[in-house]
Parts: sequence; C-alpha cells; structure tokens
Amino acid sequence: MTDLPMIEAAAARARGVVRETPLLSSPFLDAIAGRPVYAKAEVLQHTGSFKFRGGWSAVSALDPATRARGVLAFSSGNHAQGVAHAAQLHGVPAIIIMPRDAPALKIENTRALGAEVVLYDRAGGENREEIGARLQAERGMTLIKPFDEPQVIAGQGTCGLEIAAQAAALGITSGTVLTCCGGGGLTSGIALALEAHAPGFTVRPVEPQGFDDTARSLAAGTRTGHGAPEVGLCDAILTPMPGAITFPIMSRLCGPGIVVTELEVKEAMRLAAVRLKLVVEPGGAVALAAALFHGRDLADGPVIATLSGGNADPEVYAGILAGG
Amino acid sequence: MTDLPMIEAAAARARGVVRETPLLSSPFLDAIAGRPVYAKAEVLQHTGSFKFRGGWSAVSALDPATRARGVLAFSSGNHAQGVAHAAQLHGVPAIIIMPRDAPALKIENTRALGAEVVLYDRAGGENREEIGARLQAERGMTLIKPFDEPQVIAGQGTCGLEIAAQAAALGITSGTVLTCCGGGGLTSGIALALEAHAPGFTVRPVEPQGFDDTARSLAAGTRTGHGAPEVGLCDAILTPMPGAITFPIMSRLCGPGIVVTELEVKEAMRLAAVRLKLVVEPGGAVALAAALFHGRDLADGPVIATLSGGNADPEVYAGILAGG
Repeated sequence: MTDLPMIEAAAARARGVVRETPLLSSPFLDAIAGRPVYAKAEVLQHTGSFKFRGGWSAVSALDPATRARGVLAFSSGNHAQGVAHAAQLHGVPAIIIMPRDAPALKIENTRALGAEVVLYDRAGGENREEIGARLQAERGMTLIKPFDEPQVIAGQGTCGLEIAAQAAALGITSGTVLTCCGGGGLTSGIALALEAHAPGFTVRPVEPQGFDDTARSLAAGTRTGHGAPEVGLCDAILTPMPGAITFPIMSRLCGPGIVVTELEVKEAMRLAAVRLKLVVEPGGAVALAAALFHGRDLADGPVIATLSGGNADPEVYAGILAGG
Repeated sequence: MTDLPMIEAAAARARGVVRETPLLSSPFLDAIAGRPVYAKAEVLQHTGSFKFRGGWSAVSALDPATRARGVLAFSSGNHAQGVAHAAQLHGVPAIIIMPRDAPALKIENTRALGAEVVLYDRAGGENREEIGARLQAERGMTLIKPFDEPQVIAGQGTCGLEIAAQAAALGITSGTVLTCCGGGGLTSGIALALEAHAPGFTVRPVEPQGFDDTARSLAAGTRTGHGAPEVGLCDAILTPMPGAITFPIMSRLCGPGIVVTELEVKEAMRLAAVRLKLVVEPGGAVALAAALFHGRDLADGPVIATLSGGNADPEVYAGILAGG
C-alpha cells in the first residue's frame, strides 16, 4: 500500500528526470472564479501529462533483472506514453495495449517513444486485462497498471509533494486542491502527500458528467461504476470505477466529488489557452472547469487545480478553440 | 547604457515578482531539428510575454515620486501589457498608446490590467512618438520605451541570466541562442547576460521574411530599416529598425540574423502546441521556427530558442492550429 515514505522514495528516484512543473495563475482567471486560482501545469511534464511520474516511479522501482525483461501497460493514451518513455529512458522494451479508438496522437506518440503498440477493439468486447495477462505470461514482462498499483500512486504523489512546497512558498497553507480524476491514481497520490505536508488542503476529485464513478463511490461509501461506455470528450479519465487501492485512500482523505459539463470543460480549455498559454486536453481540464465555474460547490479560499494532460488531438483541439 | 550590473540589479528587483520561466524540450522536436532544442517558455511569464520583465524593471527603477505620477508607453500589445501590469502592481497610473489595428486581445488585456488605452491610426500616418510626447508633457508621466531604454533592456536581460543558469544546470555551456527580434531589447539584453555568464553561446536574432531590419543592419554594420509597413502575421516584432541603444550591443555580440517564412512560423506554432503544450503567438515562434527548420544556417550543437510571447488572438490561433 502506498504511503508517504514510498512517495518520498519515488521523489528521490525522480530527481533530475521528472520535471517540477510550475504552479501558474492569471488575474483574469481569479476574476472569473472570484478567488485565487492556481494551475498545476502537468501538461508541461515529460510526455505531456502527469502519467510520466507514475510510469517512471514504477519502472525505476523494479529490480534490474526484472526490468530488463521489459514492461507492459494498457492505456487509452497518457499512461501509455508515460510508461513507454520511462522504459525508453531505462533502455528496456515496452509493449502498450491501446484501444483502437484512442486519439491518433496518443497512439503515434507511444510508438515514437519506442514502445510496441498492440491495439484492441474496445467496442467489440475484447478484455484488455486478458490480453495483458497473456502477453505478460508469454514474454515475462512486468505489467504496470495505470492507477491501481502502489508504485504508480507513489509516483503521482510526487505531484502532491510539489504542490505542498509551491503553495507554502506562496504563503498558502489551506484551500482546495481539485484533481482530474479517472481511476484515482493522481487523486490518491496527491491526497497522501498533502495529508503529511499540507494538511490544511482538502482534495476533491473532479469528473465529467456521466462518468462520475468516483463522486458516486465517495457518496455511497463503496466503489460504484458510472455504467457508461468509456468513450467521450474527456477520453483520458473515463475509467469505469475507482481502483481497489485508490478508493480507500480517496474515501479516507478526499472531499465530495465534483461533476462538470462538457461545455464547462471546453470553456476551461479555451481559458487555459488564452490566459495561461497552455494546451490542455479535455480530461485534463475538468479540475480547472470546477475551479472557474463551480465556486458554489467549493469552500472559501484559494483553489489549486491540476491541469493533468495536454495530449489533445490537434484537429479536435483547434475546433474547441474556435468555439466548437 | 545597459551593462551587467544593471541586469543583475534588475534581477534583484524582479525576485518574487517576475516568473523564472522553464526551459522545455521534447524528443520529437529534437528529432525534427536533428539536434537538442530547448525552448525558453516566456509565454508563461506574467502577461504572456517577456515584456513584463522590461516593464517591471523600468517601473521599479523609477524614484517613488516620479513613479507616482504614472507611466506611459506605446506598443502594439505585449509591451503595453507588461508596462500596464507593472504599473498596476506598483499602484500607479498607466496610459498606453496602441495602434487601432493591434490584436483585440492585446487591447482588451491592457485595459483589464488597469491601464488607460489611447488608440491611434497607424495607417493614417499619426506619429505615436508625438502623441506620447504630448501626453508626457501634459501629465508629467514617464515614458517607458519598448526597447531603446536601458532599464527595459536590463529587464529583458534577466531572461538571459536564467538561460545561462538553466543551460549550466543541464551541463550545456556552448551552442546557439535564437531570439525573436523586433527592436532588439530581448536580443541585446540576453546577449549582455550571456557575454558574462555563458560566453560559449552565440546569440542570433530571428525575424520574419520582409521584416528583417536587424539581419540587414548586422550585415551592413549600420542601422537599416526593413521598409515595410508594420503590419503582418508576426505583429509583435515588426519594428521598422533596430534601436539606437540595442543595435551597438547586437552588433558587438550577436551572430548573423536569421530570416524565417510565415509557413515556418505557423508550423512552429503547431509543433509548440502539440509537443510542448504551449500557446505561442506568431512573433513569439520565429526563433523556434529557425531552430527547427534552419539547421543549415546554424553551427553544430544545441539550440535554445526563446518562445517570446503567447498573446495570439484566439480565432487567428485556432485557424493556424487547424492548418491555416
């Protein structure tokens, strides 16, 4: 189970490799939100999302002989790139199992980062876990799960260590941290780091309407699925249910979930471009959308929102910037 | 005349106010350029461009009684916002004289940052210097010139101090620094800082085709105008001629100028979005365009390119991302 020493060990392994991403702000965003808003710019992380933190943490934690046989991951895209790049930097092979309908850019990037990509048909009912287990057995590679894996959660937790230090440097010791939440790896990692280093903050997971499995699970006190197919604008965070490892952490440490609409997500993407000069993908913009448009759901005080990823398909992104 | 102690004093005044912007990279950009490429992300500076460095330096250098009477600037947009925000943070008035055809976003932002905006008709032959001089005399405000002003150059030089330190941290002590060049404030400031702190680097100004007054001036050994009207895609850097103060510095310290096409600029903007997750305006992308597409004009070794500004009008930007 992930704990603070694991996160701190992941941070030590990450030094000089994982980027410390900036905490950015704009008076224009503060005016919209009616409170100070800070954006944790994980879009500037290597591979364009926080997922490189977890990928690097998991791959670097393997013993060298195991690591040399390579790693395996299934992912709609950002975890794929994070693991592929971590494997590439370690000089070990990676196979990534991706849905055929993942954004083309994420598939291309994963291949360009040196990984072998195996595509599967999400709509056709193929089970990615079975494909992964088979490849794992055949090739002796280690499966790096996208969120329900203690070393991955520890890696995402390094983002929380940075948030705690950066907020303290700004003199901010209490407020709300909003996280873009799929399976809960980033959310639970950040929550563990802040529990120790910035206990004045409440972590609140944010999800898109219709894919609010974490909000429902937190409300019900038990893991609950959203019941929708994993296809939608916010492709990075449509995971069907919180993880068996991540949910108990979130249940213990996080406030109620927040649900945002696709219109709010698109407007947050446009504002991130105009006001922060950052390209944010839909799934990476849900927390900023909550910060800007859900003040009624938030306690008073400053808000820190993760901008979790920026790997939007260029045509889709251009359409959204143009008002689509 | 700007010198290293002035730049270091500007850096001391900037501490805790001006952002240290990150030096970012992508293996995909390295592959295109065939060499390591680093982007100095000044789009993440307050107000979305490096101009806040010069604005803050100049306003903070005024004696308090003078500063209290307010400041005045003429600018097509980024200097306007830099000075407006610096005045706002000091709690003193600012009047900004802007061309009526400047990008709407830059005019709106300047007003939103608390400045009074006076628009003039660039095509109609109005002389912005005369308007500035009249307002200066009437109101006793201090004119902050956009580039030909020692304290502004000193402020832009703080970007060079950061480049020197960040390159050294990466173990890079020689190579080429490409700057987006209008009047030469950023270029000359960076060149002075690197002369002292990273003498292994050659600074080379980059301009858009048709507006290559600095390249021509460096080649001729004397200040030479580009002769074109100040209207074009790269609105931020269409200044007619290098400055009387900036040119001797560039002439002494900088390598030959490089000229890029509008197509190269647009492709650099798209790649900055996809690979660095940064929104860059046309005038802020010329140096990256040179890094990616003008390898034949560059000495071997790594390249550091300034991404000078990100204040593109959203509709224009969306059109370029969509391939326009």
